[in-house]
Amino acid sequence: MKKKKAVCIMSGGMDSTLSAYMMRNLGYEIIAVHFNYDQRTQKKELECFESIAEALYPKGTAHEIKKYSLDIGFFKELGASALTDTSIDVPTTGIEEGVPITYVPFRNGIFLSMAAAIAEKEGAEVIAIGVVEEDSSGYPDCRESYIKSMQQSINLGTKDETNIEIFMPLVHLKKSQIVQEAQKLHIPLELTWSCYKNEEKACGVCDSCRLRLKGFEQAGIKDPIEYE
Amino acid sequence: MKKKKAVCIMSGGMDSTLSAYMMRNLGYEIIAVHFNYDQRTQKKELECFESIAEALYPKGTAHEIKKYSLDIGFFKELGASALTDTSIDVPTTGIEEGVPITYVPFRNGIFLSMAAAIAEKEGAEVIAIGVVEEDSSGYPDCRESYIKSMQQSINLGTKDETNIEIFMPLVHLKKSQIVQEAQKLHIPLELTWSCYKNEEKACGVCDSCRLRLKGFEQAGIKDPIEYE
Repeated sequence: MKKKKAVCIMSGGMDSTLSAYMMRNLGYEIIAVHFNYDQRTQKKELECFESIAEALYPKGTAHEIKKYSLDIGFFKELGASALTDTSIDVPTTGIEEGVPITYVPFRNGIFLSMAAAIAEKEGAEVIAIGVVEEDSSGYPDCRESYIKSMQQSINLGTKDETNIEIFMPLVHLKKSQIVQEAQKLHIPLELTWSCYKNEEKACGVCDSCRLRLKGFEQAGIKDPIEYE
Repeated sequence: MKKKKAVCIMSGGMDSTLSAYMMRNLGYEIIAVHFNYDQRTQKKELECFESIAEALYPKGTAHEIKKYSLDIGFFKELGASALTDTSIDVPTTGIEEGVPITYVPFRNGIFLSMAAAIAEKEGAEVIAIGVVEEDSSGYPDCRESYIKSMQQSINLGTKDETNIEIFMPLVHLKKSQIVQEAQKLHIPLELTWSCYKNEEKACGVCDSCRLRLKGFEQAGIKDPIEYE
């Protein structure tokens, strides 16, 4: 029987890596999709994506992984986010209420739309995305209600025979649960990157580093990557 | 009072031009958005977009128009459509049942997502798109049900204070009604382009030319552009 395909959006971070491993473990053939959008840590994230995609099916196994590494110039042109506009500082003083300046307008909308086009072309039945709703930076495009609505939109806006389900297996997990689950599944967390600012050693103080470090601390596990 | 802003997706074709003029007449400040996606007639469509955007507010009037001309390499990489893959012929034998090979997977999903990001950044309240549902090529991403669902998705996936309405003023019009309405509003139809194949003289036999020509014929108006 032919394996079902899942388009996995993979940033190189911890959440989307766990999400992709979960899809692999469910038996899906993985189509790995990564976006380069001139974000500050583009080079590092791409390296991590490549390493993780390689680790997902070790060499010598019968599996093949199809990869899309897509360049989107749009977000740089749009600006309005500390991740794509280097004249805006990445906040390092702690997570605050509301939508932070690192929010990239409707980023997951654009990512999911492109993933949907790939899924339709490749005949994939699933798109997997590693969004986390509560224990996160508070981006509106990571909410379950949005992703569910987007699934409906995608199915209405593609061919009648295209039926896509969006999996978001981490949406209600805490970061500590993500770390624990990742360890249980032997996921190479040393290959993942979360820092918004640096590409060599993680800063430890941006929102993304803070969330990651808190997750490891609460899980009682040591983070294998280096910090400044 | 500050004018309300509308992000108008403008291909350089007849429908999106009429749609943009209708928004202008409603008093909106227009943010004109065009996509270059390595489609066969990219150069011509961009020229038409530029001319139409200039005609929308003639020089010397107090209006300014903000323009985004965005390059999307993605669709070329994806292929799967006669518009972006030159090894697939554009059909010229007449419109058939079903979704034609000129369909670009979830194109309007990607366009609307980018338009939403622009609208959120610019504080626009409206996105206008010139989709036509019945009297058209039969693309699933031109259906009213899809656009309505997408509006909901966009509002769920952006900031709480971002509220965007998608206008699709032509969705249930016939092509002949579009031609008539365009003439009534003194729209420079000679600046618009519909042909899928050519950039000099329109082919007259692709689906898009056939729909356009039928519209003019039924409206009893002569199409001002040249055909082979």
